[in-house]
Amino acid sequence: SKTHRIAVIAGDGIGQEVMPEGLRAVEAAAAKFGMALEFTHFDWAHCDYYLQHGKMMPDDWFAQLKGFDAIFFGAVGWPDKVPDHISLWGSLLKFRRDFDQYVNLRPVRLMPGVPCPLANKKVGDIDFYVVRENTEGEYSAVGGKMYEGTERETVLQESIFTRKGVDRILKYAFELAQKRPKKHLTSATKSNGIAISMPYWDERVKEMGKAYPEVKWDQYHIDILTARFVLSPERFDVVVASNLFGDILSDLGPACAGTIGIAPSANLNPDRTFPSLFEPVHGSAPDIHGKGIANPIAMIWSGAMMLDFLGHTAAHDAMVKAIEKVLVEGPRTPDMGGGANTSEVGKAVAEAI
Amino acid sequence: SKTHRIAVIAGDGIGQEVMPEGLRAVEAAAAKFGMALEFTHFDWAHCDYYLQHGKMMPDDWFAQLKGFDAIFFGAVGWPDKVPDHISLWGSLLKFRRDFDQYVNLRPVRLMPGVPCPLANKKVGDIDFYVVRENTEGEYSAVGGKMYEGTERETVLQESIFTRKGVDRILKYAFELAQKRPKKHLTSATKSNGIAISMPYWDERVKEMGKAYPEVKWDQYHIDILTARFVLSPERFDVVVASNLFGDILSDLGPACAGTIGIAPSANLNPDRTFPSLFEPVHGSAPDIHGKGIANPIAMIWSGAMMLDFLGHTAAHDAMVKAIEKVLVEGPRTPDMGGGANTSEVGKAVAEAI
Ligand SMILES: CC(C)[C@H](C(=O)O)[C@@H](O)C(=O)O
Ligand SMILES: CC(C)[C@H](C(=O)O)[C@@H](O)C(=O)O
Repeated sequence: SKTHRIAVIAGDGIGQEVMPEGLRAVEAAAAKFGMALEFTHFDWAHCDYYLQHGKMMPDDWFAQLKGFDAIFFGAVGWPDKVPDHISLWGSLLKFRRDFDQYVNLRPVRLMPGVPCPLANKKVGDIDFYVVRENTEGEYSAVGGKMYEGTERETVLQESIFTRKGVDRILKYAFELAQKRPKKHLTSATKSNGIAISMPYWDERVKEMGKAYPEVKWDQYHIDILTARFVLSPERFDVVVASNLFGDILSDLGPACAGTIGIAPSANLNPDRTFPSLFEPVHGSAPDIHGKGIANPIAMIWSGAMMLDFLGHTAAHDAMVKAIEKVLVEGPRTPDMGGGANTSEVGKAVAEAI
Repeated sequence: SKTHRIAVIAGDGIGQEVMPEGLRAVEAAAAKFGMALEFTHFDWAHCDYYLQHGKMMPDDWFAQLKGFDAIFFGAVGWPDKVPDHISLWGSLLKFRRDFDQYVNLRPVRLMPGVPCPLANKKVGDIDFYVVRENTEGEYSAVGGKMYEGTERETVLQESIFTRKGVDRILKYAFELAQKRPKKHLTSATKSNGIAISMPYWDERVKEMGKAYPEVKWDQYHIDILTARFVLSPERFDVVVASNLFGDILSDLGPACAGTIGIAPSANLNPDRTFPSLFEPVHGSAPDIHGKGIANPIAMIWSGAMMLDFLGHTAAHDAMVKAIEKVLVEGPRTPDMGGGANTSEVGKAVAEAI
């Protein structure tokens, strides 16, 4: 079978610490399922690179990366070194846009062995996907200031929604819902307050819904939707949301399911014209960096999603099973109430695979 | 003492059902504490009015209301009759803007007798304020469509932040934090993704913080902040947020504290140039309208906040105490696991006052 070429970018902070464990697990799965993987490491897209070069990445980053089958990505950002909007717009957000990774797919699942912050929930009660638009919407560097530095200072910030951008994420979400047993989709909106873009979003949902008569769908304003994540997470199956709302829901969802420390994500270019990118939902966590205690499970689970996207569903399933085993039996990092370090957990998962 | 003139607008759905109980409780407090209140009822700012008149309110609404000391407001919106963005921009959002109610103050508190959806929380663990900017930011009807109706359709939505608007809400929040025992403030941001307005927000927070050296402040991106509401609500004291982020956090917060069914809010014009407005956080709930089972406690608690703002802190405290008593002893509406109706609960609170 063909060799998958994977670009590895560990990034900042604990990204550097969880990446080796992500690779260890992916390699264990590759060995077991007989895949050929070729890894190429890139030592840029982190804040130290910025401090040395005045930019997050070399000018030819696009050419260097575009031929890969996937990008395996740790985390980026270290606000004490570089402001977040500079580090993120100079790396991760560029990848998402320029490689047209328009789907950010984020499973939200209460896993066995993970204590749930919500009362009286058991495994199976929380099990849904957040499908987040990943290339436009509220994430924008378009806008500006007027009367700068004066009492009359006024700042304009543009959100941009296109028919193409909205319809393709809705299509992806409706198709995913159609494949799931419950066939249910929830759209996140705020059309009562954000008066131009969100009514448009609602319109497109209604239109797209017509093409998927088997899918039952509803919509909630984002404020009450966050409340429902806490009060009745059982009712969700596929939740589709704009860039900002999806960002919020895909941190809140994993928190409701116990911790964002284990949540994975896939930044997908479903058309496969460019590499897709797989990364933990958690950030670079400068506060615990260097202690060797970061939880590697989100990185490993993201690796599983990568293999799934590359066509190796059995390998994905085996990796998720191994994660479940370690979550139940340990070892555990301190965030999960254990005393193990990053690599002990990583090795245990690799062995379980 | 002077007579307070209060405009009463019940609005849509359960707004009509909870308002009489709000008034009953406020009147009980007025009798007990010897206040003179004068109520004037307005039968507009609801969707049936829109269906008859093609607008939510009469043209002279501003002149009719501007002389009142406060507006006691139920809820507005009935999407099957009128799209939300039309009903809300035609009433509630107009009040907030035109009466310059730039502070939306929303207590988040785990009350005795209320089951908490978060595991292992007790009364006292959740007790903070969301201070929401209420007149600008992401809530905007500015923007438009290009290439409408075609594949190239592009929608622009403007968010607008002004120095005046940002600074005054930050000042209010820092002053509130300064008065609280913990003296802690958290700012909600998303400056890593929303690249023009949110870095500006952060800048102004940093600047304002200098004037309040006793207040310890921090900031979180909205995604992880929602996660922290679920995972560690104890750590919050005063949370200041833009219009949209405040909207989200003030639904999520009450959900974490048990239910949005009892959460109150105050839309304040601290300068008292125009009336302030007091309303439940919950909406008009068309699905349970007419059944007489709506929980009146949010309306009553909003009435307590109104009396506080009018200078009657003892009356406020007595009303909150009465609410606590009824939450513990019942009667309870079905949303709180009881079998009582709206007016039974309302009467019990009024009696307890
Ligand atoms: C009804 C709606 C426009 C309103 C808002 O978003 O402000 C409501 O959710 C609130 O929080 O008061
Ligand atoms: C780091 C940040 C820009 C990013 C986002 O907001 O998309 C992160 O929160 C995420 O969810 O991947």
